[in-house]
Amino acid sequence: MAPVPDFHVVIPAGGAGTRLWPLSRAGHPKFLTDLTAAGRTLLQQTWDRLVPLTGPDGIGIVTGQRHAGAVQNQLPDLSAENLWIEPGPRDSMAAIGLAAAILARREGPQAVLGSFAADHVITGQEQFEAAVRTAIDAARAGYIATLGMRATYPATAFGYIRAGEALSSDQTLATSAEDTRATTRAQQVAAALQVAEFVEKPDAATAAKYLESGAYFWNAGMFVFQTGVLLDHLRRLHPDLHAGLIEIAAVWDTIQRAATLERIWPTLTKIAIDHAIAEPVAATGGVAVVPAEFGWDDVGDWAALRGLLPAAEGNTVLPVPERGSPNPLIMDGVSNFVVPAAGRQVVVLGAENLVVVDTPDALLVTTQDRAQEVKDVVDALRAAGSEVLL
Amino acid sequence: MAPVPDFHVVIPAGGAGTRLWPLSRAGHPKFLTDLTAAGRTLLQQTWDRLVPLTGPDGIGIVTGQRHAGAVQNQLPDLSAENLWIEPGPRDSMAAIGLAAAILARREGPQAVLGSFAADHVITGQEQFEAAVRTAIDAARAGYIATLGMRATYPATAFGYIRAGEALSSDQTLATSAEDTRATTRAQQVAAALQVAEFVEKPDAATAAKYLESGAYFWNAGMFVFQTGVLLDHLRRLHPDLHAGLIEIAAVWDTIQRAATLERIWPTLTKIAIDHAIAEPVAATGGVAVVPAEFGWDDVGDWAALRGLLPAAEGNTVLPVPERGSPNPLIMDGVSNFVVPAAGRQVVVLGAENLVVVDTPDALLVTTQDRAQEVKDVVDALRAAGSEVLL
Repeated sequence: MAPVPDFHVVIPAGGAGTRLWPLSRAGHPKFLTDLTAAGRTLLQQTWDRLVPLTGPDGIGIVTGQRHAGAVQNQLPDLSAENLWIEPGPRDSMAAIGLAAAILARREGPQAVLGSFAADHVITGQEQFEAAVRTAIDAARAGYIATLGMRATYPATAFGYIRAGEALSSDQTLATSAEDTRATTRAQQVAAALQVAEFVEKPDAATAAKYLESGAYFWNAGMFVFQTGVLLDHLRRLHPDLHAGLIEIAAVWDTIQRAATLERIWPTLTKIAIDHAIAEPVAATGGVAVVPAEFGWDDVGDWAALRGLLPAAEGNTVLPVPERGSPNPLIMDGVSNFVVPAAGRQVVVLGAENLVVVDTPDALLVTTQDRAQEVKDVVDALRAAGSEVLL
Repeated sequence: MAPVPDFHVVIPAGGAGTRLWPLSRAGHPKFLTDLTAAGRTLLQQTWDRLVPLTGPDGIGIVTGQRHAGAVQNQLPDLSAENLWIEPGPRDSMAAIGLAAAILARREGPQAVLGSFAADHVITGQEQFEAAVRTAIDAARAGYIATLGMRATYPATAFGYIRAGEALSSDQTLATSAEDTRATTRAQQVAAALQVAEFVEKPDAATAAKYLESGAYFWNAGMFVFQTGVLLDHLRRLHPDLHAGLIEIAAVWDTIQRAATLERIWPTLTKIAIDHAIAEPVAATGGVAVVPAEFGWDDVGDWAALRGLLPAAEGNTVLPVPERGSPNPLIMDGVSNFVVPAAGRQVVVLGAENLVVVDTPDALLVTTQDRAQEVKDVVDALRAAGSEVLL
């Protein structure tokens, strides 16, 4: 299928992926890494997944100066004007809002923008594209649309989306008299549901109730909206942030970009788009959720990554070919996960359910049950002043 | 106390210590390593333990060309004429027999020679010296004397010595009319026991019986004998080996040493002193065992080494200061043993009873229960052609 007219994507590419330490670092983040041994990094896989919907000129990346070169190297088809370098991290609302403001100036307020994380793993390209197309139609109907992941277990690591009624085919928030595909769009919008509310990461008992009810989706942080709709919400809800982004966007494609960014960016409110837009707009009926039929994983920790990789004789190895490690020698080990990324011979003898991540300057040995706590390791190293390892 | 007159020591310093891979290698063997974090390598500790009995000129080292430089560096008081370089490993009988033959030429057949391993850990210097002095007296009485380790658990990794009756004070195999200390010596000899037999490494059930009987000692391979007595036994039991060693010793302190070694050494029978001398001589009543009251460990594997080191908060770390590793970060781990020898940050999170040995080119992760099988790892690497790691 051809790209969707007037659809654009922003991929915020920040975040080290702390729970995948020591492979993932501030200087070598998760999204720049081929974590699934696919021959493509997570960022490249994100690009590959979206480019059929946008064409190569329709994708922009928001990233920091530190990773701009790597992003360009990994994405040779990314046009220079779509590499949006933020002077410092100011959370997702500023990053996505900047993209929306730039796009609104370049393409107008009707332009539809989708925001997708740079470091998630998705399977089922056809289902993914179908869901995004539905979300685009909901966006054209005036909604902030989000993609809701089917909860398959009582996860406590994700926020949830409580769905309400299905959108009816005439339930559009904005007029679209100019649209010649109104009927088709109405049908597709009907595949989406009203969002009743966004809820925070639950405890285990609450997560079990959510799962049982069938009315909850995992919030994967994918949003699709018209730029004008998003900016209107932002003006209403966070006027200072809105004003700053508009001022930056006004000079983005001019010689004044650097000076304006330098002056305004550090003053912008740090807030996630979920809190800034999704939650308050959902409360007034303005958010729609498209149930995802594709496979999704945010690769939240080593145990999750192991689940995405093929196991050989009960053990799993993530090859990191650029580091040139010999194959690990695993003797009588069961269900271990080994990441040999230091060029050294790794030997595991008779252990079970371990995670062994070997990098040139740091070695992690833990169990798959404790993998979620790797972020505590990073915190402890930071507290000990080991910045070079982070 | 002063050194014992006419007592000499040979320390065969070969053997990589395969079960302590990957820290111990062919090129970086156990005996050259400070395995107990004592500030002295095992070879240096062996020297320190014996030099009060011999003085610095009374200790000789048999080692290979590869380690000769390291041995000299570690033992600055070793005299050059007592560094005995063997052209290749020919097992312990050739190494010890060479030392005996050289010493017999230099000092005569009455000279007493003790052979002690370079890579054992011994505690209780006073008790050690007392046992050696008793063994020397048994040697002067004509016995091949050995030091018998008190069995404290049903070990299957050691050969055993079955003891018979105590030697009586008049039970000397050789006359010693010239000795003015005859009475004292007779008393000390009486602290030794006749050896009934040497037995091979037992299975677990047999080991338990040995332990219960109280009549068995562990064979730690420490032997003390008059050079003439040993060479007489060797001439009788292994005449070709004896002849070869005598021929080499005859030219050792001459310019012909190298040529003679090159010609004869590769032809010598490869056999352990236990099989060549101790077992057959014991069968005819010629071996005495001195019960050891000192602590002994042959540091046979990582679990054994862990037992010799202090545990901090349930985990044990072997510092390897010359490699400059930061302290391991062990979070919620219990009873783990970490050897950080690669200069890298090692992190253990929530694991139990692991052995983690981190070296610049190889990483081992195993459990303390499986530590004995590390030799199988080395065999597997050899089979895979990974000679550089051995």
